[in-house]
Amino acid sequence: MDYQDIKTELSENILTITLNRPDRLNAFTLRMKDEMVDALAEADSNDDIRAVIVTGAGKVFCAGMEMEPEGGGHLFGYDDAEGMEPPLETIRDSGGELSLAIYNCRKPVIAAINGAAVGVGITMTLPMDIRLVATNSKIGFVFTQRGVTPEACSSWFLPRVVGIQKALEWVISGDIFMAEEGEKAGLFHSVHDKDEVVEVARCIARKLIAKSSPVAVALAKQMLWRNPNFSHPAEAHVVESKMIYWSNEFWDGKDGFTAFLEKRPPRFDTSLADVPKQFDFWEAPPIK
Amino acid sequence: MDYQDIKTELSENILTITLNRPDRLNAFTLRMKDEMVDALAEADSNDDIRAVIVTGAGKVFCAGMEMEPEGGGHLFGYDDAEGMEPPLETIRDSGGELSLAIYNCRKPVIAAINGAAVGVGITMTLPMDIRLVATNSKIGFVFTQRGVTPEACSSWFLPRVVGIQKALEWVISGDIFMAEEGEKAGLFHSVHDKDEVVEVARCIARKLIAKSSPVAVALAKQMLWRNPNFSHPAEAHVVESKMIYWSNEFWDGKDGFTAFLEKRPPRFDTSLADVPKQFDFWEAPPIK
Amino acid sequence: MDYQDIKTELSENILTITLNRPDRLNAFTLRMKDEMVDALAEADSNDDIRAVIVTGAGKVFCAGMEMEPEGGGHLFGYDDAEGMEPPLETIRDSGGELSLAIYNCRKPVIAAINGAAVGVGITMTLPMDIRLVATNSKIGFVFTQRGVTPEACSSWFLPRVVGIQKALEWVISGDIFMAEEGEKAGLFHSVHDKDEVVEVARCIARKLIAKSSPVAVALAKQMLWRNPNFSHPAEAHVVESKMIYWSNEFWDGKDGFTAFLEKRPPRFDTSLADVPKQFDFWEAPPIK
Repeated sequence: MDYQDIKTELSENILTITLNRPDRLNAFTLRMKDEMVDALAEADSNDDIRAVIVTGAGKVFCAGMEMEPEGGGHLFGYDDAEGMEPPLETIRDSGGELSLAIYNCRKPVIAAINGAAVGVGITMTLPMDIRLVATNSKIGFVFTQRGVTPEACSSWFLPRVVGIQKALEWVISGDIFMAEEGEKAGLFHSVHDKDEVVEVARCIARKLIAKSSPVAVALAKQMLWRNPNFSHPAEAHVVESKMIYWSNEFWDGKDGFTAFLEKRPPRFDTSLADVPKQFDFWEAPPIK
Repeated sequence: MDYQDIKTELSENILTITLNRPDRLNAFTLRMKDEMVDALAEADSNDDIRAVIVTGAGKVFCAGMEMEPEGGGHLFGYDDAEGMEPPLETIRDSGGELSLAIYNCRKPVIAAINGAAVGVGITMTLPMDIRLVATNSKIGFVFTQRGVTPEACSSWFLPRVVGIQKALEWVISGDIFMAEEGEKAGLFHSVHDKDEVVEVARCIARKLIAKSSPVAVALAKQMLWRNPNFSHPAEAHVVESKMIYWSNEFWDGKDGFTAFLEKRPPRFDTSLADVPKQFDFWEAPPIK
Repeated sequence: MDYQDIKTELSENILTITLNRPDRLNAFTLRMKDEMVDALAEADSNDDIRAVIVTGAGKVFCAGMEMEPEGGGHLFGYDDAEGMEPPLETIRDSGGELSLAIYNCRKPVIAAINGAAVGVGITMTLPMDIRLVATNSKIGFVFTQRGVTPEACSSWFLPRVVGIQKALEWVISGDIFMAEEGEKAGLFHSVHDKDEVVEVARCIARKLIAKSSPVAVALAKQMLWRNPNFSHPAEAHVVESKMIYWSNEFWDGKDGFTAFLEKRPPRFDTSLADVPKQFDFWEAPPIK
């Protein structure tokens, strides 16, 4: 796929995806969504990619949905819909399609939010694993002030990330708030100078890559997002029992403990291709 | 309905409900429950009411369940129950009936806790969207010290609001703690002078009303409380895709984005009466 | 059962369980798991035991899984497993078996973490109700750095205790962090001098015992862990309505409110043996 609204760069096993419409404040388009979904699929399946960083070109991260016609299509992705109940496929929220692609990507995704992030600009970051933000950035879940409802699966992710109290306050009011308030509430891992936020993200990614098993990281990420949704811990126990057996007997655990006892670096050489991509205990509803 | 244990006042599109038994420290009665459920149903259906504030008359917010016979009936609402398994209708926890009414009210509800809130006095506020509290107020989930279990759906709401660690600590001990500890743990949005807590609540309500679409707020509130209970974000995505389509094509979103681009205030004139009250994706168990 | 890898002491109605392999940094063995499960079953059923404290002998709390053969069996408890899908019974994660035993124990369990807690040493404490920790203790969810996945039901418990953001950060990286960072994130109730952590745990336990109904505490603990997993608060309302009826009419609530009105200490003399141990509204998956 030929990228136009994003650009990507792979170095040190880190894929950096840059939202790349700086003259439009990186406003989100259907094309940008398709390109990001494509880049995330590549990150998921390519063993050379160990972590993903998402950032924006220019002064802001993302000003929200592109509202001008040159954005390349209708606002939320439903050109031909009519009536109250068109088929879901024709009215899929495009932000949600991106959020599900991030949720399904087995590599850690780090948001390096280099400036303002508003609407889908902030909601798209909620399924990412770590969010860094630039000092003084304006943040806003502004939907109610535009007459619409929250999207990009944010009604599912935001209460998980910051708790129901803050989620209600920010979303019901639709007000802009500063990055520092977000950090205090747990929305952001940390706040950094604008010109350092990508480099800090790279440092975190490098640390992850240096010491951890790629397969163990991929599975642990899925387990932490998915297992809490079971209604009893015994269900998580079933998943964990299988996972620790598999990872220890067949995958990177084979050398991990031995290396630890022998005080040498472990050989983590299992490919994610050798690990099932879908486990039936986490079966998703039948939409992609 | 003629109110006796509460009083209500509507101004600036804000309905203020005042617990009004100051000589009994606003202790909770079955009649108070019925009156609040009635007032909340009115708030839900009346387009002139955009937000609700709940506060108490006199020096405290609510000292808990009325335990003296003049309270007008048995403690938790089951005069005629006998044996271990009477029908649920005859032993419905009255605090829980109120909590469900708050949960089902589509307008934002703000607690202006003007003093001590103990037992049902604090558990009834957990389904409210924002909780403000007066300096030095005594707060207590005192149930275990009276030999009974927590109520008003607090076992469902409290871990969502403050996390499982604080919920266990407060409920297992049954101890009284101060408002300031509650704020630190995220139970309260903020702490204010006793004589300012209602005015701060009004400011927050006014701000909400000034800029947000009533329909978008009503839907967003429901989405944030209900969607996280899906076990997969794709289920929230289905709801959100429909909601953003409906709100953007048929309801207040029709003018919201246009107004934003034209730099003028939006016309948010959709009535909640034109929006389905029950959506089948959030179907409740068959008790009202 | 004759204990070898733990020791237990009962005084002031508090059962203290001490991990007791100080020469091996209290590394976790299958025998230690069996002994703890046995001690917790006793704590659950014995009315003389009102609270449980878990601590470690010597300088650390628990250094993780025993990895040397003298630990008495294979690492995670599956000596004879073969192939990708052996029956679950032969590959049960031993840490998870312990976590479920703690989850099912109806008495409050307090972790007095007297030093380093790594791997299963920290994950086993997540189902406990309150966690105290010694100053400067090293803590680590180190699994990915050994090539394996998290266990002991930690993928279910950790996001509940500290939120998904911190859980992802700690588990994906597998890094060691200090007790003080854990306290800031809500993992620990409080940090204390190494030689005071058990005594503070005893103080908390004594306070609980002095004022609360044992039956109400046992039920409240179960309600707070289990009811939030219902997808609608009305389901919690059904459970709570029955519980408050039962506890008020048949169990310790019979005297609790009367005593409060008469300003005397209540008689809390209901035995947990008179309360159903399993309620069908919390039915667990069919593994013990």
